[in-house]
This record gives sequence, C-alpha cells and structure tokens, in this order.
Amino acid sequence: MTELKNDRLLRAIRRQPLDRTPIWFMRQAGRYLPEYRAIRAKAGDFITLMSTPELATEVTLQPLERYPLDAAILFSDILTIPDAMGLGLYFVEGEGPKFSRPLINEQACRNLATPNISDSLDYVFNAVASVKRELSGRVPLIGFCGSPWTLLTYMVEGGASKDYRATKQLIYDRPELAHEVLSKVCNALIDYLSNQIQAGADTVMIFDSWGGVLSNPAYQAFSLQPMQQVIAGVKANHPDTPITLFTKGGGQWLTDIAASGCDMVGLDWQTDIHLARQQIGDRVALQGNMDPTLLYAQPEVIRAEVGRILQGFGHGSGHVFNLGHGITPQVNPEHVGSMIEAVQQLSPQYHA
Amino acid sequence: MTELKNDRLLRAIRRQPLDRTPIWFMRQAGRYLPEYRAIRAKAGDFITLMSTPELATEVTLQPLERYPLDAAILFSDILTIPDAMGLGLYFVEGEGPKFSRPLINEQACRNLATPNISDSLDYVFNAVASVKRELSGRVPLIGFCGSPWTLLTYMVEGGASKDYRATKQLIYDRPELAHEVLSKVCNALIDYLSNQIQAGADTVMIFDSWGGVLSNPAYQAFSLQPMQQVIAGVKANHPDTPITLFTKGGGQWLTDIAASGCDMVGLDWQTDIHLARQQIGDRVALQGNMDPTLLYAQPEVIRAEVGRILQGFGHGSGHVFNLGHGITPQVNPEHVGSMIEAVQQLSPQYHA
Repeated sequence: MTELKNDRLLRAIRRQPLDRTPIWFMRQAGRYLPEYRAIRAKAGDFITLMSTPELATEVTLQPLERYPLDAAILFSDILTIPDAMGLGLYFVEGEGPKFSRPLINEQACRNLATPNISDSLDYVFNAVASVKRELSGRVPLIGFCGSPWTLLTYMVEGGASKDYRATKQLIYDRPELAHEVLSKVCNALIDYLSNQIQAGADTVMIFDSWGGVLSNPAYQAFSLQPMQQVIAGVKANHPDTPITLFTKGGGQWLTDIAASGCDMVGLDWQTDIHLARQQIGDRVALQGNMDPTLLYAQPEVIRAEVGRILQGFGHGSGHVFNLGHGITPQVNPEHVGSMIEAVQQLSPQYHA
Repeated sequence: MTELKNDRLLRAIRRQPLDRTPIWFMRQAGRYLPEYRAIRAKAGDFITLMSTPELATEVTLQPLERYPLDAAILFSDILTIPDAMGLGLYFVEGEGPKFSRPLINEQACRNLATPNISDSLDYVFNAVASVKRELSGRVPLIGFCGSPWTLLTYMVEGGASKDYRATKQLIYDRPELAHEVLSKVCNALIDYLSNQIQAGADTVMIFDSWGGVLSNPAYQAFSLQPMQQVIAGVKANHPDTPITLFTKGGGQWLTDIAASGCDMVGLDWQTDIHLARQQIGDRVALQGNMDPTLLYAQPEVIRAEVGRILQGFGHGSGHVFNLGHGITPQVNPEHVGSMIEAVQQLSPQYHA
C-alpha cells in the first residue's frame, strides 16, 4: 500500500492533531464542472460513465485536478446495489433513476436475490482500484453506499418519490416483510463496502438521503438499526477503516446516530454544528455543513459563511468541512474555489 | 358572539382541563373527500372556489359534516397575500401555484405595494364571517396565513421551488433588501390575521412550510424573527386570541419557536412529541403529529400510532391532535374516521 501524502481527512475523523481543517464535498465530481459535462456527453449516458472504470476514474479525479481538495470520492451511484439485486436500473433524462422490476408485492420481496457482490459489482471495485492507482497516495479515497432504508424507498417506489407512500405502507402494515428485505440489503451492503475497502477505499460513507422522512420510532427501526448492522458487519471485516454516517434531516437524532458505531457523523445545513459538537462531538468527528445554495452567493458571503461554520465547530481536530448536501449543477466553479480557499485560510487558527 | 358549544381546541391551547384531546387536521377540507372533488369540479378552478365566500363556506364545513372534528379551518390559500400585493396569482393544473409578476429584481422588491388588506381581501373576511354564521358555535374556527419567509420564497421564485435558489441568493447577498420585503409582508400579515379575527376567527395559525430549508442563523433572521413580528402585531390588536406557529422541519429549533410569543407549536411527524413536551411543553401547547402517510396503513395500525402519539404527549391538557403535515389526496376517508375515533376513544385516559 502506498502511504498517503495528505492524510488530513483520516486524521480529522480520528480527531488527531492537524494543521488545518480538511475539505471535500458531496458530488464534487459532478455537473457543475464543464470537464464533467464534456466526459458525460462523450460517454452518452450516466450508467456507462459510472460502470466503465477508466471513465469513472477520470471523473473521480477531475475535481482534484482543479482544486486542492483533501479527499477523492468514488464516482458511482447508490443504486448499484438494487441493480445488482436484479431490479434493473435505468435512467430517464430529466426524471432520474428508475427500476424496471421494483418490489411491487410480497412475492417480489420474498424473491429478492442476494447477489454475489464481488462478481456483479466488479466494475465498482475495479474503479476503486484504478482511482487508487492514479491517486498514488495524493489524498485518501472515500467509498460509499446508500443506506438500507434509502435504497428500500427506490426499490419499492421504483424510483424517486414525493411521499414514499408504498414504502411507508410496507413498513407500517408489514414491518416483518420490510425487515426481511432490509436484511438482504444489509448483507449486500456489508459485502459491498468491505469489497470497496479491499480494493483500496481508505474510508467509507453511508448516505441515508431519506431517513429524514421518517418519524422517530420508524427511523430507529427501519433506518438506523439496519445502518448499525451494516457498520457492525463492515467493522468485523475492517476494524480500522473509519465509517461516516449521514442522515439528511437527521439533526434531531444526532445522539442516536453518534451511538451507531460510526466514526463520523455527517450534518445537513439545517443542523447547527456548534450545538451538534456540544451534543456529540466528544464521541465522533463531524462532517459538514454549509448550505449548498450558499455557493450561489458572492465570494465574500461564501467566505463569511465558511468562517461561521469553522468557528461554530471551534478549536481542535474532528471536523471535516463539507456541504450539507450535494453541490447543485448551476454553481459557478469559481465560487467553489472561494469556499476551498476560505477553509484553507481560515481554519489553521483553530488548530494552533 | 355565539358561545362555543365545543371549546376543546381553545381549552387545549390554553392548557385548561378537558375531557379528551381535541382533533382537527391540516387540509381536512381537501381532495381526499369526494364531496370536495365534486364542488371543486363545479367551481371549475381553485381560485374561484376559495374566493367565493359561499363556496369556501361549503368546503370548510364538509369535513365537519362527515366527522366529529373539534375545529373548522377556513378553506383558503396562503398565497392570497402576495396576490393582494399585486403579484398575480394563478394556478397551472398539475404544477401548482404561480405568480405572473414575481420579485425578479431589486426594483420589483422596492416597488412592492403594501395593499389595503380590508378591501383587497374582503372575500376572505366575508368567508370567515359566513363560516362563523353557519357554524353557529358548533366548534371554533381557525384562521391562518403563510409565514413571511414561506411567502417570500413563492414571491421570489414565482412559484414552488426545489432549492429556493433565488430566494436564498436574496437573503445571502442582499439581506437588507430581503428584510425590506419581509417587513412589508409582515405588515400585511398583521392586518390579514387581525381582520380574520375581527370577522370571527377564534384562533389563528401561521404556516411556515419552508422554514425548514434554512440554516439555523438564516432561520432565526429570515423566518422566526419576522414571525415574531407578526405575532406581536396581532397580539397588540387581539391579545386574547391564541396563535399557533408551525415550522415544518423546525424540530431542531423548538425552544426558539416556543419563545416566539405563540401559544401553541405545531410539530411535524419527524419530531418526537414526548421529547418536544419535555423540552417546551411547559410553556406552550403542542399540536400534531402523525405522519400523514400513516393514513394509508390499515385501521389497526392507525389506531396503534394514534395511541403512541397520545401516550408520547402523556397526561394533562395542552395537546391538539393533528397530522404532522397536510393530508394527501389519495387517502381513504374511512381511514380518517379510524384516526378520529382512536383519538376519541384513547385520549380520555390522559385527562382523568
């Protein structure tokens, strides 16, 4: 294994002393970059782009060519797992992801296959290995997956949803059947993250994009508990690899999230990082949490907001600067530069 | 003034002793009711329906004919105010509300008119008076408005939005201009709610549908502070009329919301009512908070969830049962009946 030249991310997650706060951001390899749009046009479609290791590698590295970021995150999609489980992922331009064989009834749930992850998702692990080679220790590589609950919503609804009606009917009316499906997804995710780590991912993150649409007891039972299972399973295989858990809209459940076994908690922008640190920051690291829409503001406003968030976390290691959700396509790449520069310039004082 | 025959709602808000927990629910006069769809079809369009006092009265009373509810809420729309301010409200079927003259630049913000509310929205106050007559004291009537921030998003975006980009650019880049517009909206809202109370509304509610998309400091400055201004203004005119404040997604800010001067705090379904009462329930009443999607579940599941929420609040007055957001159109009206029956049957034990 190549030694990391920049290990700020891993040191921050482990709350070890640092020179400054590290920064990467969600969807940093994405549509706001003209070079991304160019390769996306060349590839023709999103699935080709993410499932061709050379292309996924190039896209993963694009933001690192442009900005002095402290981490790379694999260019992929959370829906690779349901696809590998046989649901048939496809994309409709302007409508987002769809499944041709969603879990429309009990039989579909019972028949859900537990795939051989190493074989069916070898394109992902090949991409991880390829990115790792190209990085040659420059910065750490982040692997990821969707949370079991978040994946369940896509698997049951057959795509994105407004009110998650079918998935909620499943958990409310048939909790045992929901748990049966979630359990299969958990097993697949444990294999998936373990294989990503095996292939070279230095740390992994679980994206619970839709945990925030649940009531507290439903969140505990159908989102957090399965995530704990995934974390425990991955930790059994790779005890030293740090794991980040991010529930969008989970600000009210931070204490429970911090007790999940994860090493770092991702914060959305609605959560106050100062209060979050008071509540849980002595147990885990915190990642976040600038409003992505703030990147549409003027550079001096961006700089002030970066300063506010750094000050909110305060002194010491344990903070990874990030957005509170993925960057949006219309952002001016120069504004991203302002954010990164502000983190570099304003954060050393908190590590003195 | 006719004396109220059923004053459970007002007693609960004032945390006075009661026989059982009162219940009404957001959008109770709405599309899930076949009788609503019939009158809506007859009226032709939504604006005609809400702006014709006889039709608005009929629609307001429909759920009370069907269910033993403890309150009526005026059938209207939060966007009457921007419409009265000259923005030109219209609806596109399947796309929701739009404005023909949104606040697209500084000039539009500066030119924004402060309308004479009594004249321009007389159809609303006539509807309030008409509903009040028809109710003849059966249950209290709830008046309402949108929050200044929520209205601002529609006024700036020209309709519904996904990321509130233009409105956020306004508050981030031009905070003083945003406050100038918010201040005009606040003044209009104070007149609006005061006139509704004058016309017969027994209590009023402020719907802050989109406060939850803001960071903590932005919420404080651009949503909560203007709402406090509205509350103070209405209280100056009508000190004895209780006011409810509901920020969807505001579960992390309950302590601040409870200190706004309101009498009751609305809770979305992601907030745990037990923890909310521990935090703020000694200062204000609480309203909520069943997941509206739970109405798609089986009646016994609905009953169990009603029981869980009642138990979560616990003993004593100060709870108004409601959904955590508006009911959705595909709900079976019989399931609504199950929810109401469960509140009636399961709540008296908490008032013994």
